Amino acid sequence: VSGVPTSGDERTVLERLATLLGPPPAGEVWAGDDAAVVENPPGHLLFSTDALVEGVHFTRALSSLEDIGWKALACNLSDLAAMGGRPLAAVVALCGAAAADLDGIYRGVTGAAERYGCAVVGGDLSDAEEMVVTVAVLGTTDGRPPVLRSGGRPGDRLFVTGPLGSSAAGLRLLRAGEGESNEAVRRHRRPLPRLGEGTAAAELGASAMLDLSDGLSLDLDRLARASGVGVELITVPVAAGASEEEALGGGEDYELLFSLPPGREAAGLFAARGLATPIEIGVLVGDRDRRTLRGAPLPLLGYLHRLSGGRPEGE
Amino acid sequence: VSGVPTSGDERTVLERLATLLGPPPAGEVWAGDDAAVVENPPGHLLFSTDALVEGVHFTRALSSLEDIGWKALACNLSDLAAMGGRPLAAVVALCGAAAADLDGIYRGVTGAAERYGCAVVGGDLSDAEEMVVTVAVLGTTDGRPPVLRSGGRPGDRLFVTGPLGSSAAGLRLLRAGEGESNEAVRRHRRPLPRLGEGTAAAELGASAMLDLSDGLSLDLDRLARASGVGVELITVPVAAGASEEEALGGGEDYELLFSLPPGREAAGLFAARGLATPIEIGVLVGDRDRRTLRGAPLPLLGYLHRLSGGRPEGE
Repeated sequence: VSGVPTSGDERTVLERLATLLGPPPAGEVWAGDDAAVVENPPGHLLFSTDALVEGVHFTRALSSLEDIGWKALACNLSDLAAMGGRPLAAVVALCGAAAADLDGIYRGVTGAAERYGCAVVGGDLSDAEEMVVTVAVLGTTDGRPPVLRSGGRPGDRLFVTGPLGSSAAGLRLLRAGEGESNEAVRRHRRPLPRLGEGTAAAELGASAMLDLSDGLSLDLDRLARASGVGVELITVPVAAGASEEEALGGGEDYELLFSLPPGREAAGLFAARGLATPIEIGVLVGDRDRRTLRGAPLPLLGYLHRLSGGRPEGE
Repeated sequence: VSGVPTSGDERTVLERLATLLGPPPAGEVWAGDDAAVVENPPGHLLFSTDALVEGVHFTRALSSLEDIGWKALACNLSDLAAMGGRPLAAVVALCGAAAADLDGIYRGVTGAAERYGCAVVGGDLSDAEEMVVTVAVLGTTDGRPPVLRSGGRPGDRLFVTGPLGSSAAGLRLLRAGEGESNEAVRRHRRPLPRLGEGTAAAELGASAMLDLSDGLSLDLDRLARASGVGVELITVPVAAGASEEEALGGGEDYELLFSLPPGREAAGLFAARGLATPIEIGVLVGDRDRRTLRGAPLPLLGYLHRLSGGRPEGE
């Protein structure tokens, strides 16, 4: 942990943070030195980063400080889930937060960290005009090959780990001043990284996987391009209260999209682990230009619910 | 790599980035999937993050885009150096950069990465009002115990890896519209992480170490507090063109400060590796409240050269 305190006394902030983090296990060093020292399991490491920017990914009017902290870690953990990995450690660079806001943000971060078994081991604090929370995560697949986006083959069946559009619907409700206690609003504010689901899909031999951060339509296109295949969707599972457009183009659901080779079944292992049965949504095909939904062209939507009004990509 | 493109086509940006990164070694996966997959050497891992914020850590008027990219990686590598480690991999979250600026920033990042043997394996892009470049780095000590801030003992001698104040002097010259080709200006714009020096100090049995990011006075206080010792300085090595105040309170020199137990000598190993001889500046003492320079109280200065006019900490 280093850097400029936003205001207040940095030492006090770090001591408070250390209290929230708890003591590290023997041999590890968390916040307080130049770099954290963390345990190193066998096999390759997963390493990823995602930034949340005020006005782009969140507003303080619609999300609490704890929500912001939760979401900053959760969207990073989702990237590990999408590789079939589990988290080891995270570092948090927090720019532009007032001293009085730090505690709430860190409570959100550590809340998600505890729930998903990720050690928060360090970070950085800086002044900034707007709030930017950047998390980097380290993970492991425990020796299994990571599940890439590029392994999908024609004939593989496509699944998602849950119905889609909740986050976009939740944001729509919040903007209308509604739905404080609504499930979609909760999903918008506190997305749930599908770590157990990602591990299960990897163990089942998923050929390709990614997390739905930018909408099914756009993320599906990414998986198809990386794998060099086309896609025929038979259905789009729409979450309660969401529209099909929100399910296709509203991002930040953080459900996983994965493909399974023919003959593999997901339901048994998922059920045995208390996870919801993945929903089969279509199949990969050899024609790499094909993108259909129920036989009609699949609309390419994305970023519908970005707070700053992002545009669809790829147009 | 995921996230919102700042402008332009994200795919084009990522393809260009992949060109700059070059292909990963067998078994690794860099930019293009949900998380990077990197090799995992034995021993514990070092993990750290640092953010550079426009207007706080740099301005585009005084630094080029390449300088900004270089510095963002270099200050993170410096944290690994301060643990006695070497870099393995970095991820770069870039917020608020125009599409036209990405290439310059990434060239700076990859320039530093090549020089110091750090793979840049992924990142994130987002819109933002101001530019924030957050890097996270992963490193290893190759099985050696990491050198913490807390291991200094009374009687240990204190060293720095070079004269101080260059970065602050360089900024002063730039603000005065001078010194485009000055060495101090170069050091301000492109700090040099002391990775070879950090490894050598660790091999020599350095008892405590940190990198001088916020000024000798403040960083020395951090080492002393972490180690529970006091400090008696005999000298402050001032870089050419800098003042003693800049050497004490101007940060971002990124030289290393380390302590050696009695009887250990640094000069031989450093010379054998072609590194400048560390400069002995004082000694650690048992009175933990003691902070003296040539017998007089050591002024507690810091952040003198922060662009946004940060205040001394600890007051």
